Amino acid sequence: MQAMDYIVSAPGKAILHGEHAVVHGKVALAVSLNLRTYLRLKATTIGKVCVNLPNIDIFLSWDLAELKGLIPYALGKKEEVKHLDAELVKRLREFVGATNGSLDTGNMATLAFLYIYLSLFGSDELPSLTVSVWSELPTGAGLGSSAAYSVCLAAALLCASGAIPTPLKEWDHTARWCQEDLEMINSWAFQGEMIIHGNPSGVDNAVGTWGGMLRFLAGKIIPLSRVPLLRILLTNTKIPRSTKVLVARVKDRINKFPSVMTPVLDSVDAISCTCEKVLSEMTFEPITGEHYNTLEELIDINQHHLNVLGVGHPALDTLCRVTSAKGLHSKLTGAGGGGCGITLLRPETDSFVVQSTVQDLRDCGFDCWETSIGGPGVQQHAALSVKEEVLEVLNRY
Amino acid sequence: MQAMDYIVSAPGKAILHGEHAVVHGKVALAVSLNLRTYLRLKATTIGKVCVNLPNIDIFLSWDLAELKGLIPYALGKKEEVKHLDAELVKRLREFVGATNGSLDTGNMATLAFLYIYLSLFGSDELPSLTVSVWSELPTGAGLGSSAAYSVCLAAALLCASGAIPTPLKEWDHTARWCQEDLEMINSWAFQGEMIIHGNPSGVDNAVGTWGGMLRFLAGKIIPLSRVPLLRILLTNTKIPRSTKVLVARVKDRINKFPSVMTPVLDSVDAISCTCEKVLSEMTFEPITGEHYNTLEELIDINQHHLNVLGVGHPALDTLCRVTSAKGLHSKLTGAGGGGCGITLLRPETDSFVVQSTVQDLRDCGFDCWETSIGGPGVQQHAALSVKEEVLEVLNRY
Repeated sequence: MQAMDYIVSAPGKAILHGEHAVVHGKVALAVSLNLRTYLRLKATTIGKVCVNLPNIDIFLSWDLAELKGLIPYALGKKEEVKHLDAELVKRLREFVGATNGSLDTGNMATLAFLYIYLSLFGSDELPSLTVSVWSELPTGAGLGSSAAYSVCLAAALLCASGAIPTPLKEWDHTARWCQEDLEMINSWAFQGEMIIHGNPSGVDNAVGTWGGMLRFLAGKIIPLSRVPLLRILLTNTKIPRSTKVLVARVKDRINKFPSVMTPVLDSVDAISCTCEKVLSEMTFEPITGEHYNTLEELIDINQHHLNVLGVGHPALDTLCRVTSAKGLHSKLTGAGGGGCGITLLRPETDSFVVQSTVQDLRDCGFDCWETSIGGPGVQQHAALSVKEEVLEVLNRY
Repeated sequence: MQAMDYIVSAPGKAILHGEHAVVHGKVALAVSLNLRTYLRLKATTIGKVCVNLPNIDIFLSWDLAELKGLIPYALGKKEEVKHLDAELVKRLREFVGATNGSLDTGNMATLAFLYIYLSLFGSDELPSLTVSVWSELPTGAGLGSSAAYSVCLAAALLCASGAIPTPLKEWDHTARWCQEDLEMINSWAFQGEMIIHGNPSGVDNAVGTWGGMLRFLAGKIIPLSRVPLLRILLTNTKIPRSTKVLVARVKDRINKFPSVMTPVLDSVDAISCTCEKVLSEMTFEPITGEHYNTLEELIDINQHHLNVLGVGHPALDTLCRVTSAKGLHSKLTGAGGGGCGITLLRPETDSFVVQSTVQDLRDCGFDCWETSIGGPGVQQHAALSVKEEVLEVLNRY
């Protein structure tokens, strides 16, 4: 094995259009959110595996012998990654003390790491290493933080196992893998997601892997070749909500008013398709103000539709009103009923306007980040290209 | 001719659902608005016709000989009321000094009166009389104030001419005409509307005549037999707007996003049909909270759709927010872009809640009335049954 010390990152995910409608067979557009999760993997010589997840206060280490004892049997081939190894999952659940059905974030993150680590290395000698993760993403906010973590785990551990190369050349700041390697990263990240979520759609890990934008329709995920990078504000209202309850609410409303609601789902579908078309035009034509006007109108229309579907919330109304007062357009993203919203920034939006909007939103008690959507998926970083505050955290352990 | 002194009234109109969509071939529901226009007609012996319209500062009188001189030719038969008598309109326009195309409210009201008066009496001796009108409706707010005026004029002058009887019996507070007489009132009121508006849809005078609710689809107006009386707040944001501009804006948006907007019109259509069904159920079944829940949901959904159609306004958002804070549901009514909104009150809504909501809306700079929709159309009143403040105005002249 080569001397290992590398940093990878993967983006979060936002739904640009089509949340909820996708449950009813309509198109959704998922985009990468450039709030990233960073992972540093370092070979060590202490005969231990250490995992440091300071965001969620998880600091664990195990002797290699202890881990080796978990796999007294022959593991399946590494390439067969369509299904979880149920026996391994069961043993790991017992090992970390995660009772069946427990969804504790720390337990799930530990399980996902151990599962991928043991699956990739269990047939050979287990390597001594330390993995440290720092995420800019809030957890449990529907922004794909678990997928970004799983993607980073898969990329780093696949490199460590030699299954894929590290793409970074010495003159690069960042580098990405080839399609084939990304496929492998994505399929292992999906295993992590299965462990964490039970029955994930696969959208979040696909966005974390490929970045950009994905079209999601009836369970099929199609990465879109070219999309522009869009500046946004990402706001977390911090209103807790249950995706399950919200999905049920939409279903109830459709059942109560089928003739009223069915056309609304059709309209949301058309919004996703129109948006996809406009974003594609923006990569082939000079970008004009009219492109942005259209994106803004689609955001406004969809936000009204989401309210009609019954997944609005007064805090989201406040987000829309506060940003509208600055000439900006917002919609909820994800499940709604609170949670997060995105606000489109135009290229010409003045940084003073951005800063004062962020301040106004924080004054409402919201968390707010200036970031972008449509950026790159998983990548390897030269240490120098990583933001100082992130590097400081990764180097601490 | 009998000794004449009687009071009639007609309601205003609100669109409950389907404004704008109706322009694109969808159903609209027009309802009577119980802010009424009152007209007192009194026979006099002074050989003059006097018209007093204190709402718009019009106080006119003419000698009968002067008016007789306007019709030196044989008029058509009274029953032929499908088209305006173009020659008479031309002469009257010259007489009142209304240049072609002038839409001055006072001129139009005067023209409508003189046209109906001379058409009904011109072939015989002109009666000496005084007509005084007082309206609770704001003018030019899309609430059918001109139609309520035309309906009152038609009813009172048709009675004065003996074409229809006065329905009030001595023991009645109020009384209505039979269907046949209402047909005649409506057709003469439509003539008044043609003079005032040029090319009216006929909905406003139909609502003023029949009251209750009308279904309006592709130019066809169908009065609905039974509807419940619903308590509402009627709020005038006083934001001026042009119906023409708003209709054009909706059309532009449909042209820009046909696949997105066409389903929204279908959904609005379904809202009107669902609402009609619920209101009909409310007259046949015991009224339940669930009926009101459904009416509220339909109001909220349509208000979002109207925003999607591009006819919202921040003042209307404020109306919705202020009433929502009291647990009440509002939508714009009519053209939007400002103008008026309606807020549904439930039977159990406490009068304290109503009063404080009205106050909050007035604090926003809006006019606000507690009234009802679905009430009776044109009716004759015993003087004792007319509100004191209205009677006081009608008796002043």
